[in-house]
Amino acid sequence: MSIAELVERHHTTLEDAIAANRTRTFHAHWPEAPSGKIYGENANADGEAAFRGQLNNPFRGLLQGASNATVGEEASPYGFALGITYPSDNVDMLVNRASAAQTAWRSLAPDERASILTEALERASKRFFEIGYATQHTTGQGFVMAFQASGPHAFDRALEAVALGLDAQESFTSNVLWAKPMGKFEVSIEKSYRIAPKGINVVIGCSTFPVWNTVPGMFAGLVTGNAVIVKPHPGSVYPIAIVIAELQQTLSDVGLDVHVCQLAADSVAEPRALDLIQHPAVRIVDYTGGPAFGAVVEQKAHEAGKTVFTEKAGVNCIIIDSVQDATKALDNVAFALSLYAGQMCTAPQNIFVPRSGVRTADGRTLSVDEIAGLLRDRIDALVGNEKAGPGTIGAIQNPATAARLDEALALGLDVARASAPITQPGFDNARSFSPLVLRTDASRRDIFEREWFGPISFIVETDSFDHALTLVTDSVRQHGALTTLVYTTDPAKADLAEDAIITAGAPVAFNFDSFVWVNQSAAFSDFHGAGNNPAGNASFADLTFVTARYNVLGVRKQA
Amino acid sequence: MSIAELVERHHTTLEDAIAANRTRTFHAHWPEAPSGKIYGENANADGEAAFRGQLNNPFRGLLQGASNATVGEEASPYGFALGITYPSDNVDMLVNRASAAQTAWRSLAPDERASILTEALERASKRFFEIGYATQHTTGQGFVMAFQASGPHAFDRALEAVALGLDAQESFTSNVLWAKPMGKFEVSIEKSYRIAPKGINVVIGCSTFPVWNTVPGMFAGLVTGNAVIVKPHPGSVYPIAIVIAELQQTLSDVGLDVHVCQLAADSVAEPRALDLIQHPAVRIVDYTGGPAFGAVVEQKAHEAGKTVFTEKAGVNCIIIDSVQDATKALDNVAFALSLYAGQMCTAPQNIFVPRSGVRTADGRTLSVDEIAGLLRDRIDALVGNEKAGPGTIGAIQNPATAARLDEALALGLDVARASAPITQPGFDNARSFSPLVLRTDASRRDIFEREWFGPISFIVETDSFDHALTLVTDSVRQHGALTTLVYTTDPAKADLAEDAIITAGAPVAFNFDSFVWVNQSAAFSDFHGAGNNPAGNASFADLTFVTARYNVLGVRKQA
Repeated sequence: MSIAELVERHHTTLEDAIAANRTRTFHAHWPEAPSGKIYGENANADGEAAFRGQLNNPFRGLLQGASNATVGEEASPYGFALGITYPSDNVDMLVNRASAAQTAWRSLAPDERASILTEALERASKRFFEIGYATQHTTGQGFVMAFQASGPHAFDRALEAVALGLDAQESFTSNVLWAKPMGKFEVSIEKSYRIAPKGINVVIGCSTFPVWNTVPGMFAGLVTGNAVIVKPHPGSVYPIAIVIAELQQTLSDVGLDVHVCQLAADSVAEPRALDLIQHPAVRIVDYTGGPAFGAVVEQKAHEAGKTVFTEKAGVNCIIIDSVQDATKALDNVAFALSLYAGQMCTAPQNIFVPRSGVRTADGRTLSVDEIAGLLRDRIDALVGNEKAGPGTIGAIQNPATAARLDEALALGLDVARASAPITQPGFDNARSFSPLVLRTDASRRDIFEREWFGPISFIVETDSFDHALTLVTDSVRQHGALTTLVYTTDPAKADLAEDAIITAGAPVAFNFDSFVWVNQSAAFSDFHGAGNNPAGNASFADLTFVTARYNVLGVRKQA
Repeated sequence: MSIAELVERHHTTLEDAIAANRTRTFHAHWPEAPSGKIYGENANADGEAAFRGQLNNPFRGLLQGASNATVGEEASPYGFALGITYPSDNVDMLVNRASAAQTAWRSLAPDERASILTEALERASKRFFEIGYATQHTTGQGFVMAFQASGPHAFDRALEAVALGLDAQESFTSNVLWAKPMGKFEVSIEKSYRIAPKGINVVIGCSTFPVWNTVPGMFAGLVTGNAVIVKPHPGSVYPIAIVIAELQQTLSDVGLDVHVCQLAADSVAEPRALDLIQHPAVRIVDYTGGPAFGAVVEQKAHEAGKTVFTEKAGVNCIIIDSVQDATKALDNVAFALSLYAGQMCTAPQNIFVPRSGVRTADGRTLSVDEIAGLLRDRIDALVGNEKAGPGTIGAIQNPATAARLDEALALGLDVARASAPITQPGFDNARSFSPLVLRTDASRRDIFEREWFGPISFIVETDSFDHALTLVTDSVRQHGALTTLVYTTDPAKADLAEDAIITAGAPVAFNFDSFVWVNQSAAFSDFHGAGNNPAGNASFADLTFVTARYNVLGVRKQA
């Protein structure tokens, strides 16, 4: 297998992805359904068997240099230890290998890099079911969500970054004979333009979305010529290790140094992130995770003039002013609050409802009490649905998130809906809880403007729509947000909200009452991460997300 | 005049500029010759009369809000004070006006902003001769260079940034109906994408290139929806004030707030740069100037997570290994050293010559002594040319630069060519000096690896070509460089040098021996500023230079 063959093989995939980035219509290179008809009748069973076979064994498939040490502390939120170990290399070793590997990698043409990366994604996609089980049992996501979030949805985000990086690098010629007219003669210079990657790119993953939140930075760094070191969260290594292993095998097959991309596993007791970030050869840092450590990452990177992309966390808000159909609207909100038990950076937390109530299309006005009751009912309906409920809610990744439910209850606020343990069939020890919804008024900004990561939300009664909008824009500016959602049937209010929220620095959705939820963003179409508020500066995948990882250096030769 | 008319009027200009950015062929929207045939037979006389009329008067034409205070301390390096005063607003006033003006500006479509900016450039281009005189008598550049550098060359850089910014913002659709197939039905969302400028953009200019180095950041900031505050060097305000005045008049004519772009003049005694940079509403900073203050600017911006683009200074190197024609090669080097007396951030400083000498195409080998002698002769020929010499060298902007000549002489190194005062016809008190060339060996890195801004260069004898290349790449990594130039007729050495210098992080030129000089970079074709070494992180104009100034925020509506 040659690189030229891969360029030929993946040309159309990349061309279609580039077109999708431009048109932003629906595009999915990998179908999202975990279906045997699509992925093969045995794919599920094979994937589960691979998962079972990997448990309690050293991780198989990485080709990177042998390590003296291993780590491994993953435990399924569904109640068992994974027992998988990973190589744990020291920072200097990782960086030295990355530096050596980068020399050949940076000298490839952008379309060569893009094609090798696409090949690796195609190979890893054959393991979507194993990735799904690996994700379910590290993050706690229900299986279908785990399959989608770490499989097709994540891989589409990776392909999006590869395609955008390729498009950007090819947005101007790589060679030109420049001829300047000088009256009676002209002077000519042969010019070429070289992509100069900024340096080693470290990608720090999170425990809840170990693939989805890692691959955009990882593949953006790689396609632009940087060697990448992926440091996953110690609790969620397995899913991304599969992707790295397939990439290393692909690199090896085309005769490249596998250390173009390495896994840097660490442990909670001996974390490696700060040492990696602060190594002078590391010039780009991607980070997804909590805001406290995220602020440290940003500070260290900024001090050293490094490029840094972060996705921390914000406080996502909903305003309910008026609705076409209250049940459909609150079904949508109920699902958004329940999906993966609120453990998404995009999940709503605060639901602002004007004291005067919510007008509906049939001319009624629902009071705040009625809205709270309806939301409770719609969550109950979802949670109580034996087929859909447990899989939608999944399990709680971190015990601290479960403990936060008690902390929220102890606030003493009115309870609109009480949280309760959820039975996860087949997993008697799963850490699973349904959403808690509390009620408060706008005076308790000290409470609801904090991030309550997990299945905790607040219905906040406001004086008016304008009051709600002011609270939301203030919150976006001070605490950040990944998403906002407004329900209003009044076009003037919609325009007002759109301008105010965009100016504050967050994206905005309106009147979602169907099978699209505010906490989901679609690759090739939605920019994920505002980039413009305290929730982080990354946006999957805008141009800066790829272009800030390299420079262009000119070579001029007298012709 | 409506904005729609301007979009129509400048459509082709912008389309051609976008195409030029992609093809990187020779493109000049404004001809570089200061010729009456091009710009009108009276243009020179009118421009000089406008310049004379402006001297010793308050600056005319700005429309920004009245100031309580004025400043003005410009003095021509040709020996007279300009006596022009400018409004000097306090930082809060400037920022408040900019914030108010930005609301309407950000809501325009990118092509509307681009067209308004192009109109302003076209209007200001009618004053190229006045800008030329204003530049000559603030920077010390000879008139022809001043005309070109602040006129057509600078305006092409501005148009390049406008076109690239427009192209980037239009690289994806602004509206789409997204329809996701869901088996038997599909779900649709109306999506739009809004450009969200990061915030107020402050552009800090330098004394030597008050237009050329200011307009890229200024127009990149503006086209991406930011309000811009330009803080010129107190010694070089007049040329850029003309551009700002024409832009403000254009904004006013289309009914926009003129404070979209403001002049923030200050004085050496009461500098405003740090206060501007540190204002919380300022989110983007462009800086051109000395490395000491540049480092402070970068630190303050990084600490606050602001976008910052810098062009500081480096140590630019030449290697002479072998040449086709020694006289032509050293003519080229002589001109590069003499042009504006080395006061260009791109001017060469260190000329490395292997001890074994320089082979020529006719089979001879010139010793280091012979190379030094030939360089002296070619500088003498240029300097002694009464027609070309004084205008090429111009005058020294800053007395400290002239004093540096004495400091260099006091090093006690061998003098390859002595500097001498230059008579500038018509200006008996001009501060003008020809190039000083010193000789040293490679052991004196403490001397030659410092930046010696001004007409000071060093011929450095090295052990070999490889030794020279190592010195150059080390210097690029440690001290930065805007340019490098290698003379070699050996293709293997050229390849080696190209890879080594590109990897070190600087652009490279080869064998310049014609009418292109290493210290000139062409808009639409050459990326100016490596962006990847200690000389600064800006590159005129790569994608990041425009895209890092805004974010994209999505609006999603249930369809």
